[in-house]
Amino acid sequence: MPQEWSGSTPELLLALDRRSGEPLRVQLESQLRTAIRSGRLESGERLPSSRELARELGLSRGLVQEAYAQLQAEGYLVTRTGSATRVAPCAEQAAGPAREEEPAPEPPRLLADFRHGVPDLTAFPMTDWLWALREAGRRIPTAELDYGDPRGSARLRAVLAGYLRRVRAAAADPAHTVVCAGYAQGLALTLRALADAGVRTVAYEDPGAPGTARRYAALAGMEAVPVPVDSAGLDVAALERTGARAVLVTPAHQWPTGVVLAPERRTALARWAVRHDGYVVEDDYDAEFRYDREPVGALQGLAPDRVVSIGTVSKSLAPALRLAWLLCPPPLTPAVRALKALEDRGSPALDQLALAVLVESGRYDRQLRRMRARYAARRVALVEALAAHAPAVRLTGLAAGFHAVAHLPAGRDEAAVIAAARERSVGLYGMSACRSSGEPEPPQLVLGFGDTTERAVREGIAVVGDLLG
Amino acid sequence: MPQEWSGSTPELLLALDRRSGEPLRVQLESQLRTAIRSGRLESGERLPSSRELARELGLSRGLVQEAYAQLQAEGYLVTRTGSATRVAPCAEQAAGPAREEEPAPEPPRLLADFRHGVPDLTAFPMTDWLWALREAGRRIPTAELDYGDPRGSARLRAVLAGYLRRVRAAAADPAHTVVCAGYAQGLALTLRALADAGVRTVAYEDPGAPGTARRYAALAGMEAVPVPVDSAGLDVAALERTGARAVLVTPAHQWPTGVVLAPERRTALARWAVRHDGYVVEDDYDAEFRYDREPVGALQGLAPDRVVSIGTVSKSLAPALRLAWLLCPPPLTPAVRALKALEDRGSPALDQLALAVLVESGRYDRQLRRMRARYAARRVALVEALAAHAPAVRLTGLAAGFHAVAHLPAGRDEAAVIAAARERSVGLYGMSACRSSGEPEPPQLVLGFGDTTERAVREGIAVVGDLLG
Repeated sequence: MPQEWSGSTPELLLALDRRSGEPLRVQLESQLRTAIRSGRLESGERLPSSRELARELGLSRGLVQEAYAQLQAEGYLVTRTGSATRVAPCAEQAAGPAREEEPAPEPPRLLADFRHGVPDLTAFPMTDWLWALREAGRRIPTAELDYGDPRGSARLRAVLAGYLRRVRAAAADPAHTVVCAGYAQGLALTLRALADAGVRTVAYEDPGAPGTARRYAALAGMEAVPVPVDSAGLDVAALERTGARAVLVTPAHQWPTGVVLAPERRTALARWAVRHDGYVVEDDYDAEFRYDREPVGALQGLAPDRVVSIGTVSKSLAPALRLAWLLCPPPLTPAVRALKALEDRGSPALDQLALAVLVESGRYDRQLRRMRARYAARRVALVEALAAHAPAVRLTGLAAGFHAVAHLPAGRDEAAVIAAARERSVGLYGMSACRSSGEPEPPQLVLGFGDTTERAVREGIAVVGDLLG
Repeated sequence: MPQEWSGSTPELLLALDRRSGEPLRVQLESQLRTAIRSGRLESGERLPSSRELARELGLSRGLVQEAYAQLQAEGYLVTRTGSATRVAPCAEQAAGPAREEEPAPEPPRLLADFRHGVPDLTAFPMTDWLWALREAGRRIPTAELDYGDPRGSARLRAVLAGYLRRVRAAAADPAHTVVCAGYAQGLALTLRALADAGVRTVAYEDPGAPGTARRYAALAGMEAVPVPVDSAGLDVAALERTGARAVLVTPAHQWPTGVVLAPERRTALARWAVRHDGYVVEDDYDAEFRYDREPVGALQGLAPDRVVSIGTVSKSLAPALRLAWLLCPPPLTPAVRALKALEDRGSPALDQLALAVLVESGRYDRQLRRMRARYAARRVALVEALAAHAPAVRLTGLAAGFHAVAHLPAGRDEAAVIAAARERSVGLYGMSACRSSGEPEPPQLVLGFGDTTERAVREGIAVVGDLLG
C-alpha cells in the first residue's frame, strides 16, 4: 500500500552517524536501500522531496539529490518529470537485511577418531610452504600473472614430470601433465574427456569408493559398474565381462583393502586396455607412504598410452592446497586441456610455482620422510593396541598409507560396534560404506590413523577393544 | 621378435654411475624400465639370470634380484618358476623416453598492444599479497587445512559479503556467497545449476562475448540466444521475445560497449525475471574502475532473489590468482554448493584467507585507488592521442574500466585496419569478434589499455592514427 511519507518515521533515516567517518551520502543511500529491501519503504511509496529531507536531516539539498540520483540509477527509485520520487516497482522483492552466517554446531569431541582420508594436518610444513610461496613470488615472471596455459605452470609441469619419473617410475612428460584442483577435479576432467571420446561405462573397484565413482560418472553422463577386488587386486576377468571401457583403480595400495595389484594383474589390465580401446584411471593416492619396501611404480609407467594417472598433495601436504596433477595419454591431452580451460582457466599460478619450489628444494621429500616416520609409529601403535585389547581382530592392508582394515570376528554387527564405540567417544567407520552393495558382511572396520595421534590410537583402541574382538 | 640376451649389448645397462649418489639398484631399475619402454628390450625377451648380470655389472646378485622383483611387481617383467625372467607382454607399448616440453615460440614484440580484458600486471601488489599470505598462514586454524565448506572459507565469505554490501550496494549474505576459481568457474557453476533447475535457454548481450556465452551454455547443455544492446543497455523487450529464462548481463559497464544499464531497464529486467521465473547472471566485472562518478550498485542488490552476481579479482589484482565469488539467490545456493563440491571440493584455503586479510587491512582498496589513477591517466592519453592523430574517430564507453570503443569513419574495413596496424607492430582488436553475427559493420575497435602503458598508448595511436580516421 503506497503511503505518504512522514517526518514521523525517523527510524528510517535518522541513523546517520556524523562521527563514523563514512560519508553522509553513502550512509543515506545505504539506509534507503535497506529500507526498500526490507519492505519498510514499499513499492510505489512517495519519498519526501530532496528539500524536505535535507532540512529534516540537516544535510545539503545537493547531497540528498545525489543520493536519490544514485538510487535511481540503481533501479530502487523512479522519478518522472514534474512528479515526486517514488520507490520503484519490484524493488521491495529484494531479500531481507543481510545477516551473518550462523556457525555450524561443533561436532562432539572424540577421544580418538579413526576417520580416514585425511593426513596429519598439524604436521603441515607451513614455514616451508610460506617460504616456497615467497620464493615463487620473487621469481614469477610478470606474464605469468595473466591467464596461463590451462595445463598449468610450465615450471611445475617440468618439475612434477621429473619427480614422477624418478620417484614413481612414471613415463611422465610435461606436455601431457595437467595441473588440477585436487583429485576431484582430476577425476571430473578425466571422465568428461573419456565421455567425449565415446566411453559410456566406467568400472570401479568393489570395495572401493562407490559413492565417488557413481557421482563422477553421473557428472560425465556415464554409467558406473562395480568390479570385485580380491587378494591380488582388481579382478580383470570380471572387468572384461562388464563391457566397460574405463576403470578406476588404486594399484599401489588398493582403497580400502590395502592390497597391492599383483604383477600379472597389472599386465592383464594393460592388455585389457589395449584390446578394448580402454582407459585405466589410476589414483596414485598414497604411494608415498609405503613402509615395508620400495613402493611399486605407477601403473602409468607400464602403459602410458592407456593410463591416466592422478596424483595429489592432499595426502602428502594438505587437502586445502587443492593441488593435483594428471598424467594423460597423449591422445587425451587436448580434450583434458580444453575442459580445464573451460572449467576454470587453469589453477592458481603462485601456488603451482610454490609446489615446484618445494619439490626442487628437496623440502617436499624431507616432509614425506618426516611423515612416513610419524605414520609408521602410529601403525605400530595400532598393531600393538589391537594385539593387547582385541586379539581376535585380524589387521590387513598395512603395507602403505595411513589406514588399515580390521576384520571383526564373524557374527559381530558392524553398525552396532560403531554405535557403541561412539557412545564411548571413539569414532569408528565401517567397510559397508565402501561396498557397492552397502552390505555389512563380513564385518570390517576401516581404521584411519592419518589425523589421529599415536596416543589417541592407543587410548582409543584400549577403550573399544572389548567391542571389537 | 624375442631375442637372446647378450653381454655384448652393453649400451643397455652399462651406464651405472657409481659417483652419482643415486643407489645402484635404482639406476638399474630405471634403465631397465627405459629399455623396455623404448622397445630396446622387447616383449617376451629373455633377460640374463641375476647371477650373470650381477657378474657383468660388478653388482651383488641380491641387488639384481631385488631390481628384478621390483620390475616384476610393476608388471615390466615376468618370471615363471624354473624359467628365465622375461619382458612382460604389452610392457613395450609404453611411450618413448619422456622429453622436456618444447617452449612455445615467442609472440612478436609489439610497440603497443591494445588487447583488452587484462589489467596492468606490472602493478600487481606482490609485496602486499605475500604479506597477506603470511598473515593467513599465521592465522589459519589447523582444521582449515582439511577439505572445507565447498562454498569457501567462512572468513572470506563474511569479509566479501560485508565489502560488497558497502562498496557494491549488494544484498550479500555469507551463507549465499560461494567462492570460486575465477569468473569462468562461476559461470560454469551457475549455468549448470540453472540447467538442473530446468532452464533450457540462456540469452546473452549482443555485442558481448558470444563465444563465451555459447561455450558455457553448451557445457551446461543449454541453448544460447543473443539479445541486442542499445544505448540504454540490454533490450529487455527483445529478451522477453526470446523465451529464455536466464540472461547474462554486464550492467555496471556493458562489455564491450561501455553502456550503463539504464534505471528503467534495471527495473524492467528485475520484473522480467519475476514474471518468467527467470534468472539474471550479472558479471560485475569492472565496476571498481569508474571515473566520472560513483559506480552504479550491483543489480543483485535490487533483486537478490533473481540475480546471480559474479565478481572476481582478475581485473583488480591478477587473473593468475583464480579467485572470484558468486552471490546466489538463496534457492539456488544448495545446487551451486553441491556442484562446487563435485567439481573441486572448494577453492584453496590459504589464498582465500589471504584475500580476506587484504580486504580487511584496507590494502585492497588502496590498490584499487592506485590502479584507478593509473588507468585514468591512460584513458586521458587515449582520448588525447586520438584527438591529435585520428580526429574523425569517435570514442565511447569510457565511463569505467580499461577499454573504450573507437568508432571508425563509415566505410573503413575493420579487418584491413587491424592487419595494417599489425604491420606497424600495433595490436588492435575489432568489434566484429564481439558481435553474435561476426559482422564487421559498423567498423569499430575495442581498445584496451589495462596492460598498455600511457606511453605505449600515445605512441601506438600516433603510429596508426592515419589508418583509423
